[in-house]
Amino acid sequence: MTGSDSPDPKDGDGARPRARGLARPGRQDWSAWPEYDAAAEGFRGYWYPVTWSSHVTGKPLAVKVCGEKIALVRDGGRAYALHDRCPHRGVPLSLGDQQFPGTLSCPYHGWTYRLNDGQLCAVITDGPESRICGKVTVRTYPVEERLGMVWVFVPIANEEPHPIDSQLPEELVENQFVMGGRMQERSGNWRFAAENGFDEGHAKYLHRTSMWRMFKPMPTWNITKIVPGGRWIYRVQEEVHWDADFPGVGRWSNKRWWKLQPPKETFNIGNTGKPKKINPVIAKCDFPGFASLSMPGVLRIVYPNFIHYEFYVPVDADNHRYVGVMINFTEGWKAAGFYVKYLGAIRWLFHGQFTGQDAWMVDVTDAPPEKLYRPDVSLTAWRGLAQDEFAKKKAAAGAK
Amino acid sequence: MTGSDSPDPKDGDGARPRARGLARPGRQDWSAWPEYDAAAEGFRGYWYPVTWSSHVTGKPLAVKVCGEKIALVRDGGRAYALHDRCPHRGVPLSLGDQQFPGTLSCPYHGWTYRLNDGQLCAVITDGPESRICGKVTVRTYPVEERLGMVWVFVPIANEEPHPIDSQLPEELVENQFVMGGRMQERSGNWRFAAENGFDEGHAKYLHRTSMWRMFKPMPTWNITKIVPGGRWIYRVQEEVHWDADFPGVGRWSNKRWWKLQPPKETFNIGNTGKPKKINPVIAKCDFPGFASLSMPGVLRIVYPNFIHYEFYVPVDADNHRYVGVMINFTEGWKAAGFYVKYLGAIRWLFHGQFTGQDAWMVDVTDAPPEKLYRPDVSLTAWRGLAQDEFAKKKAAAGAK
Amino acid sequence: MTGSDSPDPKDGDGARPRARGLARPGRQDWSAWPEYDAAAEGFRGYWYPVTWSSHVTGKPLAVKVCGEKIALVRDGGRAYALHDRCPHRGVPLSLGDQQFPGTLSCPYHGWTYRLNDGQLCAVITDGPESRICGKVTVRTYPVEERLGMVWVFVPIANEEPHPIDSQLPEELVENQFVMGGRMQERSGNWRFAAENGFDEGHAKYLHRTSMWRMFKPMPTWNITKIVPGGRWIYRVQEEVHWDADFPGVGRWSNKRWWKLQPPKETFNIGNTGKPKKINPVIAKCDFPGFASLSMPGVLRIVYPNFIHYEFYVPVDADNHRYVGVMINFTEGWKAAGFYVKYLGAIRWLFHGQFTGQDAWMVDVTDAPPEKLYRPDVSLTAWRGLAQDEFAKKKAAAGAK
Repeated sequence: MTGSDSPDPKDGDGARPRARGLARPGRQDWSAWPEYDAAAEGFRGYWYPVTWSSHVTGKPLAVKVCGEKIALVRDGGRAYALHDRCPHRGVPLSLGDQQFPGTLSCPYHGWTYRLNDGQLCAVITDGPESRICGKVTVRTYPVEERLGMVWVFVPIANEEPHPIDSQLPEELVENQFVMGGRMQERSGNWRFAAENGFDEGHAKYLHRTSMWRMFKPMPTWNITKIVPGGRWIYRVQEEVHWDADFPGVGRWSNKRWWKLQPPKETFNIGNTGKPKKINPVIAKCDFPGFASLSMPGVLRIVYPNFIHYEFYVPVDADNHRYVGVMINFTEGWKAAGFYVKYLGAIRWLFHGQFTGQDAWMVDVTDAPPEKLYRPDVSLTAWRGLAQDEFAKKKAAAGAK
Repeated sequence: MTGSDSPDPKDGDGARPRARGLARPGRQDWSAWPEYDAAAEGFRGYWYPVTWSSHVTGKPLAVKVCGEKIALVRDGGRAYALHDRCPHRGVPLSLGDQQFPGTLSCPYHGWTYRLNDGQLCAVITDGPESRICGKVTVRTYPVEERLGMVWVFVPIANEEPHPIDSQLPEELVENQFVMGGRMQERSGNWRFAAENGFDEGHAKYLHRTSMWRMFKPMPTWNITKIVPGGRWIYRVQEEVHWDADFPGVGRWSNKRWWKLQPPKETFNIGNTGKPKKINPVIAKCDFPGFASLSMPGVLRIVYPNFIHYEFYVPVDADNHRYVGVMINFTEGWKAAGFYVKYLGAIRWLFHGQFTGQDAWMVDVTDAPPEKLYRPDVSLTAWRGLAQDEFAKKKAAAGAK
Repeated sequence: MTGSDSPDPKDGDGARPRARGLARPGRQDWSAWPEYDAAAEGFRGYWYPVTWSSHVTGKPLAVKVCGEKIALVRDGGRAYALHDRCPHRGVPLSLGDQQFPGTLSCPYHGWTYRLNDGQLCAVITDGPESRICGKVTVRTYPVEERLGMVWVFVPIANEEPHPIDSQLPEELVENQFVMGGRMQERSGNWRFAAENGFDEGHAKYLHRTSMWRMFKPMPTWNITKIVPGGRWIYRVQEEVHWDADFPGVGRWSNKRWWKLQPPKETFNIGNTGKPKKINPVIAKCDFPGFASLSMPGVLRIVYPNFIHYEFYVPVDADNHRYVGVMINFTEGWKAAGFYVKYLGAIRWLFHGQFTGQDAWMVDVTDAPPEKLYRPDVSLTAWRGLAQDEFAKKKAAAGAK
């Protein structure tokens, strides 16, 4: 039995956005990215979507993110997030309810916390002069609402959060858009989900049987490089091969009579033929490549008529929350057309069967150890990005 | 974020039956009560009810108490308890049956143990002259039957048990009574169940929605002290407050139009109005307070017409057996009235919905760490009692 | 409480095929057989049946043996076994399928392995010139098919396997036969299953209620010795006792009005009366005893008209695969008679209810610690055989 423990330094030469031999094939462990290796429960210091806004009401809701248990409750139209543990006896505050405006009470003894700062402001069973009031606090988390979702900031230390808009994909901050989406808790570590999302290699093979692929012909193999651009890294295809003859093994192609045939001339956007007219916001996101990734695990796939985003939210070391969103930068009558298309097809074919195949693989991936190959330059570039950005963020949080 | 790590020495001053700063608020751990802290699987050296007498028959029954697996079987009208593991190959004896009077045989090879001393007295598959007979013994446990239940003594070392009647509530030893009860295995450590039972703080708040409370109005907050008396500690209310205005938060009261209104003059028994006539046995148990607790986890709540007992039996570190018993010291025709009342209402409202709320909290309590407040003097007094009594018992058991 | 920690050296004197005090009663642990003690996941270096041949097709099947995950697949009529983990990212190969003849492809990225040597021979998503091809290998396992089952060899180191026929019961290699069988994954360690199978003691007691025993009367106790013969050890009964009077306890017998009565003169085969005519192959297997055991856990029980085999296959430390096979050395018209008998009765009474009682005990056995008694000479002889044979095999595998 042999293994490629002697790496070939020429492999993966095309794309090395960072040093540290990220694309060294045959690598077994993740020691080149120590922060990434340690982030089984996610990178703290970021905003994460935890549920739909409509699910946060006056009745508390328990969620988990980065291994932390959080109680969400809405009061006066605003959403609040508290650490979901009463310091008195450890009972989850999400089992309680609101006895007074602007507060949440523990179900056991009526310890009552202010939603805006977590301070114990009344203890019903200890009377108005309770001496413990003001001496106990539950941790609160900054909350924002964007894209119809509640986002929570999980700090590294006690640092102030950065503005959520500086973390959202830029095009979602200033433009009008319509959207459809799905949110699911899935088994498997969030890093496998993020790596799967940006992974150059698998889409052409794993998804060959998905109905979604009827409308989007896929090559057999590509030569790809990774190009950094602002907060994002982009997958850029240098060569696209529709068929291949594998020596001593046989011929393989993704082409089928029931799928769309490959375009004569491939346009950047998703290997598709050049469309007649492209929304300028979408066109901008397509350069230099149609697939891009940014911290803390946000994938952007540009299609001619919409953009698909995936947010990989750490729940704990064994589970993640998959948030898939399809967005079009349009308004008025055209918005109605988008919803028809989304609800009639995209939701089922793409956010259903197609990403279900991804969920299957994320669940069974088991690495390290691992052996990387040329297309895994997309994985190693992402790990390098995550390593560097988080190291900077950690240093900044510690300095405050 | 702040926490009350600097305890206010004035809190909880009213009641300190023991030193060691038991009522020190803001305490985080249980190091002040080392024996109690170590007793996750219960205090050995006590009698525990393990099942109803009617469930122990000639067919063996497996139970667990203080982490020990025990096989119960009845022979000649008497109940016996053996360690539920055949020393031969580790098969549970509770899977076996009786092949000869006064014995229990392992189902696998017919190793046969005498019920009264656990000695291997015959090995069916080794013939009458088996040389191993008399050389192997399974541990036996002292057994008694009281209140229609089978009680097992779990020794600390190999000490003789104390008489069970010296451990039972005194009034249950010499008086005639009628009773009804429920026994349930519940999740959660037995100490959380015992603490919940005697807990001054929660009843007024947690149970505010229970139907049982229609007939028993509850205050909003009290000032309570704990008074020792014999084997028991009693909760004594020094002040009772029906309503409260919490500064900057709002007003709160337990009074509702559909509940009984508070009595004009509160009588000791359960904050109720003074009844016309009280059974003298009940009256005696009410002094100095209507709620009392004794080792190894026996709660007594005195009502004008009956007494409610709870026995918190350790199963293992994560589960306990809840035994709730309602007793009236009456005979003849009046006994029939009690049964009508018990089966028609008490069993469902009190031993059902009401204690179900307790079971819910016991299941989710997660301490230490914890932050205590003034009413938790009831918890710390109980921990002090348990600590002292068990330390004495352990010393005595070791001395034998 | 007393225990027989002072062993009586006279016990079990009758049968000591090996030294090391194997039959020392009162033994508590397995330190006398260190290799056996360490073999919780089975003895490597043997062939094991893992599934029926008909279950291995072009669609891969996942099995587990000796704690190893294995993917089985059939190609060109032949069965192949690969380690069920793609070295790339840890995905089970059994979730993949065949894209080219003679290969198996991982479902995630199309890494394609040759079935005969496990070498990575094509990576679909990396094109024909992938540089990683030939540098990665998955472990393969030798495979054979016998008795309608697929057998896998699990090596100790990287040694060549011995011929499977040298491990099979001799009579199954050269003779024609008909067979029926059952295969079940069962809970409990494989060693408890093997010990249960050859155990002299339990059959007479545990199985007293099985319907199978209507046709096979059992004694109450025997005196047994263990006799080695070639690869096998045999149970030989020196005395057979149908009834017994246990002093101070009572009389016990297996005889019932609804069971066959004991034979006047017991013939060797299964304590049965002497049959009129015996197949010569069967007769040969009956000497010197009707029950024999060989490595790595193969039981052979000789009946007048057929032989019953049990193979105890290690799955992992907590589970084993039970393979029960009934065989008759006959052909042509008589074969039809065997099938009628097997499907109409044997399968349900013997391979169903009877071995179900064994499965029950294997599941609840919990040793060491243990206390052995005279009939356990069958267990200790087996442990000694296993210890010695595996120690030799390990030395040989290491020498290569």
